[in-house]
Amino acid sequence: MAAAVSSEVEIKEVEEQLVTPWEVEAKDGGKIDYNKLIKDFGCQKVEPEMVARVEKLTGKPAHPFLRRGVFFAHREFDKILDAFEKGDKFYLYTGRGPSSESLHLGHLVPFMFTKYLQDAFKVPLVIQLTDDEKFLWKNIKLEETRRLARENAKDIIACGFDINRTFIFSDFDYVGGEFYRNMVRIGKCVTLNQVKSIFGFVNEDHIGKVMFPPVQAAPSFPTSFPQIFGDEKKSKKIRCLIPCAIDQDPYFRMTRDVAPRIGFQKPALIEALFFPALQGESGKMSASNPNSAIYVTDTPKQIKLKVNKYAFSGGRDTAEEQRQFGANIEVDVSIKYLSFFENDDEELERIKQEYKTGKLLTGEVKKLLIDVLTKMVEGHRQARAAVTEEMVDAFMAVRPLPGMFD
Amino acid sequence: MAAAVSSEVEIKEVEEQLVTPWEVEAKDGGKIDYNKLIKDFGCQKVEPEMVARVEKLTGKPAHPFLRRGVFFAHREFDKILDAFEKGDKFYLYTGRGPSSESLHLGHLVPFMFTKYLQDAFKVPLVIQLTDDEKFLWKNIKLEETRRLARENAKDIIACGFDINRTFIFSDFDYVGGEFYRNMVRIGKCVTLNQVKSIFGFVNEDHIGKVMFPPVQAAPSFPTSFPQIFGDEKKSKKIRCLIPCAIDQDPYFRMTRDVAPRIGFQKPALIEALFFPALQGESGKMSASNPNSAIYVTDTPKQIKLKVNKYAFSGGRDTAEEQRQFGANIEVDVSIKYLSFFENDDEELERIKQEYKTGKLLTGEVKKLLIDVLTKMVEGHRQARAAVTEEMVDAFMAVRPLPGMFD
Repeated sequence: MAAAVSSEVEIKEVEEQLVTPWEVEAKDGGKIDYNKLIKDFGCQKVEPEMVARVEKLTGKPAHPFLRRGVFFAHREFDKILDAFEKGDKFYLYTGRGPSSESLHLGHLVPFMFTKYLQDAFKVPLVIQLTDDEKFLWKNIKLEETRRLARENAKDIIACGFDINRTFIFSDFDYVGGEFYRNMVRIGKCVTLNQVKSIFGFVNEDHIGKVMFPPVQAAPSFPTSFPQIFGDEKKSKKIRCLIPCAIDQDPYFRMTRDVAPRIGFQKPALIEALFFPALQGESGKMSASNPNSAIYVTDTPKQIKLKVNKYAFSGGRDTAEEQRQFGANIEVDVSIKYLSFFENDDEELERIKQEYKTGKLLTGEVKKLLIDVLTKMVEGHRQARAAVTEEMVDAFMAVRPLPGMFD
Repeated sequence: MAAAVSSEVEIKEVEEQLVTPWEVEAKDGGKIDYNKLIKDFGCQKVEPEMVARVEKLTGKPAHPFLRRGVFFAHREFDKILDAFEKGDKFYLYTGRGPSSESLHLGHLVPFMFTKYLQDAFKVPLVIQLTDDEKFLWKNIKLEETRRLARENAKDIIACGFDINRTFIFSDFDYVGGEFYRNMVRIGKCVTLNQVKSIFGFVNEDHIGKVMFPPVQAAPSFPTSFPQIFGDEKKSKKIRCLIPCAIDQDPYFRMTRDVAPRIGFQKPALIEALFFPALQGESGKMSASNPNSAIYVTDTPKQIKLKVNKYAFSGGRDTAEEQRQFGANIEVDVSIKYLSFFENDDEELERIKQEYKTGKLLTGEVKKLLIDVLTKMVEGHRQARAAVTEEMVDAFMAVRPLPGMFD
């Protein structure tokens, strides 16, 4: 069983690298070994043939995050493509834990990719805001988590989701009815031993933590949204695809284990690398250190300062050495960030080559990155400013979404 | 802390008598030692002065269950009386796990007493049907638990509750909104260690069980019913009184521990003895043996047969011996049942005396009991037949109840 396997995995990971929904730590402060993670978690690598198949099926170029291996791992994404090819429906599910006022660029990655998937496949999407999780894990007032959920919804909407195909909900507002009944069905299929081994819970933890995994699992099952997707009998067998960062995998390993036992399809996953901190690639960005990340609320001046001051450089100590030996682009954070956000493949390749061979200096590469990020953050700022309270209400309104049965 | 104390208690109980919400077992198959239970659980005995005070405050004779020590233990019932005396509001909360089609007389006991309390104090009442609990603990389909909840609601309504002061709800239908938020608040205050020691959960149990105690705790807090009790600020400090059988005490020990930490009053309790099986007083009645109980659906013929055949007798082996030595009324189940349901104190006393002294034979006492039970069950049958689907809808409708702020 999945849980038994992951139990062994967790124990190994503590000695080596550690990846849970709440903690990401590379071995000896080095880089996360993603190949090892794929093997330990038991997911599959996204191969170039799969990317080509996506392009063929959707008739659109693949998103840079897919072409460049940002979304590098999957579980049964091939079955989603099979279903789509046959004309069968599926829906997307992603989410966010609203723990802070403003998002950083790493938070945007799954949403940017999810928007691409929604546009390319023309499918419905549900977005869960886990305000209950944040209340349970953080020292934060319940009402504050609900306020943050709504603020974060504005940033999510600003990513450009199609209001006709998107339902955003907060757990504290939405849990109830068939969603709650699915939580209870899920809870009946998972033992305390299993959640202890999957999530590392201990007897000293409060039971709110134990209550939560079924809440994150429930949106993987279409009947959790009867007013959104309609008719239970028709919707029960519809597949779900979850784009997320790979640290969320434990939740969905559990969910996939439970799914067939309660009459549902296993949700498929497509999983992303962690977005690196400015200081380097040893883990995810830290919300507690504002200088470890670029926020969507940062001013052009702040972006310039953070990149110049904190972005870890793979370049040489002096201009002369750089000209002579070139940069180590494998550890250079500016290159990493450009690999996420410089959409022009040729331009990205040019920058990498010239930096590697010493034609470009660190300062010059940072300037290119600052331009890209400033434009991107400014675009987000404008889009977010245009999101009205009425739009939030509309995205969060419980109403039927088309596309499921038409 | 309460949980630490109860931890010791549970361990002692396994060696001696065992009382949990799911199991009641007397020591060596004998009688439950209620004085020991009061001591172990840490509740108080209902003393005659308290009964006199209830009569004085309500201007009504106390219910036989109160006069005769059926509701024998309490937690802070005196504070409820203080509040009532000052003109402060309180509300009643009781419930039922809908695991079977029809109720037996033991199931009716808390509802009969709750109806008396509602009438005497003129207060609002919420009744929780824990269909989720029964789905989690029993091998029963989810939809079936919901059907049983509605069927059981009819029996409960037949007890004569005031529709203007009573809200009946099923967890599977009602959980959500502020009720769910209170569940999460409660879950954050209770550790796995605590639920393991209070409820005896083990690592092999499914997490649905761990999720449930906050569901049973939530109705103890008035804000769980914003549409029923109205204004949160006004309702937050209102007291709750829970009439129940004493096996439910563990849930509310936990709830009382949590209450002040999340800004609520501790719920008060008034707790009943177990209703004995026909075969004798070693525990609660068993739903798996239909001959251990009188059901509200039993015919007069069945009642007669069950009492005559199964009701454990404290009388002598022969009529001659009985005339000479009299019965042991301490172990006689017919006398126990009459103590619950023969409302006339003088008549009850006469029966006990004459049976004890040998003037009455077992068969004669059984006949008196058969008359009382047949009348009672027939009355219930008629009342239940008059309960329409529309009445169920009306009792279960989410709507304001008067009496809280007027």
